[in-house]
Amino acid sequence: MAFEIGMPVAPPSVSVREDALGRLAGLATPAGAFGGLGELSVWVAATQGVCPPLPVERVRAVIFAGDHGVSDHGVSAYPKQVTPAMVRTFVAGRAGVSALARQHRVALRVLDIGVDDDLTGVDPAVQEFKIRRSSGAIHLEDALTPEETLRALEVGATVAAQEISAGAQLLISGDMGIGNTTPAAALIAASLGLPAAEVTGRGTGVDDTALVHKQELIQQALDRVGDRCNDPLDTLTALGSADLAAAVGFMVGAARAGTPVLLDGLISVACALIADRLAPGAVDWFAAGHRSPEPAQSLALDKLGLSPILDLGMRLGEGSGAVAAVPLVRSASLLLSEVALLADLDLG
Amino acid sequence: MAFEIGMPVAPPSVSVREDALGRLAGLATPAGAFGGLGELSVWVAATQGVCPPLPVERVRAVIFAGDHGVSDHGVSAYPKQVTPAMVRTFVAGRAGVSALARQHRVALRVLDIGVDDDLTGVDPAVQEFKIRRSSGAIHLEDALTPEETLRALEVGATVAAQEISAGAQLLISGDMGIGNTTPAAALIAASLGLPAAEVTGRGTGVDDTALVHKQELIQQALDRVGDRCNDPLDTLTALGSADLAAAVGFMVGAARAGTPVLLDGLISVACALIADRLAPGAVDWFAAGHRSPEPAQSLALDKLGLSPILDLGMRLGEGSGAVAAVPLVRSASLLLSEVALLADLDLG
Repeated sequence: MAFEIGMPVAPPSVSVREDALGRLAGLATPAGAFGGLGELSVWVAATQGVCPPLPVERVRAVIFAGDHGVSDHGVSAYPKQVTPAMVRTFVAGRAGVSALARQHRVALRVLDIGVDDDLTGVDPAVQEFKIRRSSGAIHLEDALTPEETLRALEVGATVAAQEISAGAQLLISGDMGIGNTTPAAALIAASLGLPAAEVTGRGTGVDDTALVHKQELIQQALDRVGDRCNDPLDTLTALGSADLAAAVGFMVGAARAGTPVLLDGLISVACALIADRLAPGAVDWFAAGHRSPEPAQSLALDKLGLSPILDLGMRLGEGSGAVAAVPLVRSASLLLSEVALLADLDLG
Repeated sequence: MAFEIGMPVAPPSVSVREDALGRLAGLATPAGAFGGLGELSVWVAATQGVCPPLPVERVRAVIFAGDHGVSDHGVSAYPKQVTPAMVRTFVAGRAGVSALARQHRVALRVLDIGVDDDLTGVDPAVQEFKIRRSSGAIHLEDALTPEETLRALEVGATVAAQEISAGAQLLISGDMGIGNTTPAAALIAASLGLPAAEVTGRGTGVDDTALVHKQELIQQALDRVGDRCNDPLDTLTALGSADLAAAVGFMVGAARAGTPVLLDGLISVACALIADRLAPGAVDWFAAGHRSPEPAQSLALDKLGLSPILDLGMRLGEGSGAVAAVPLVRSASLLLSEVALLADLDLG
């Protein structure tokens, strides 16, 4: 699958959006009474191109797993051996997102894109799209070669096409990778022109000393890359990783195919920001599943103009915040068809 | 059912709460990564008295409907004829909360406690517990007689007992009644010792002029009642309504029976505040489903020490915000049993 850079994405239906706004205003409720749920119903209708929209039944999530060179440099509370252990936990259906996905009938797939482990004994399909073992330590070197970046983007777009062929009405990208909040925060800082001090968070829960160190490392990475940040592809090559690039490709592929994406936390929103830079207008196909406590996630959501559905202080990653929000998207998809119109009320 | 006033409520299990906190901390996730969802899982376990808790499958919601004398005095954007029309819409399964309840398999029951209409042709079971036609206009007279207040409280407790007998693991009280944000705001102002200016909101969406009028009317009601606000039963008699008193009794009955309640918006939280005054400790059996844009709702939540699950700007009432939050309570009930422990991970 050839990956097109810079070409705008066709937007969701403007006329259906107008129809949905009209129908929402005509429901047998006070104007605006559904709040954010009503706004979400309009988005769902516009992305489907039909009002009232169809129920959003088939939701599919893909976890893009990978390791990061920075995890050898004291930026995480956990060792990188946790990454392959968690891949095995996803396969076993025992992770946090596994429980949520089962509850909500969300198809869950995990792909090793850049894990620093051979995952011996794990279903080989998990490694089908592997790009490399770990990505580079971004404060010292580029995360990827330009060729690897393109290949990872293509992998992500291919996976999106597969999931859409399998019937997905809504896609979610999840993440797993010790150290991955460091490249994600760097991608956001680079895209927004912000210093490391404004984007660095505690990730899995580092202490004050490690937080300062993490911030220094992110600033070092930003300083190393300099003006290359002006180009989104260079930014991804220099500051991202194979797993993040695949998630970006997944989002761009979904948007180009007209399939909406529900974003998760910091990693997912960092990828969405790059996706919208690579494919202008892609953001119109994205909704925000939740707000994470990571400062960079909120900064990126603001830049993208997205309001999160949930704000529960979740910071697990894995796609868990988005999967937890799926019932609300489904609720939104039902309102416009199932709720009576004010004109239908018998006021005696 | 005799309704006991002032007797403290036995709390959820303290030892199970400790067990649940310990198990949550041992999950294969960073500490605190589930955020509010993790706190909710601990509450669910404590209310059930077992860790890990059972899945919360059987949720039952009751809408207590009633009219309010104040609706004849310009406090709402809608005429009171909407109340019986909406009761019929609930019966037909076409209201906002109907769609959400179907989606989440929440049993939904509507009861006319004080509607100013005979509801001719509607299933007589809906009127089985009717107290009166409309409650008094609170700025001019008491909403209820003391005998009606007690009867409404007993009705609510009886209904809670019925729903628990039907298998409810979690209860929700919903509301319907044009004008009901006025008595609800007055109950909160009276309970918190605040002036009308701090509690008055737009309800179904009144304009600036009506908002000022609504605030004056609430202040007039508070001034009329004076020191009687120090007694929760007097407060309910003077400033409440039959439907609100029934909802209070429902919550107290649930708490005394050890069945948790998920609160909805302004009306529900106002009733919870009175319930906790009548039955100290009842609040420990309550969780907050959502934050409403009504200022008094947030003030009451703060007083009760509750953090809402959703914050979507919903202001529909009907129990809709609580029903929309049910999947999150169910998610919370699954985490402690379905997610692997950190000790189970194979770190190679």
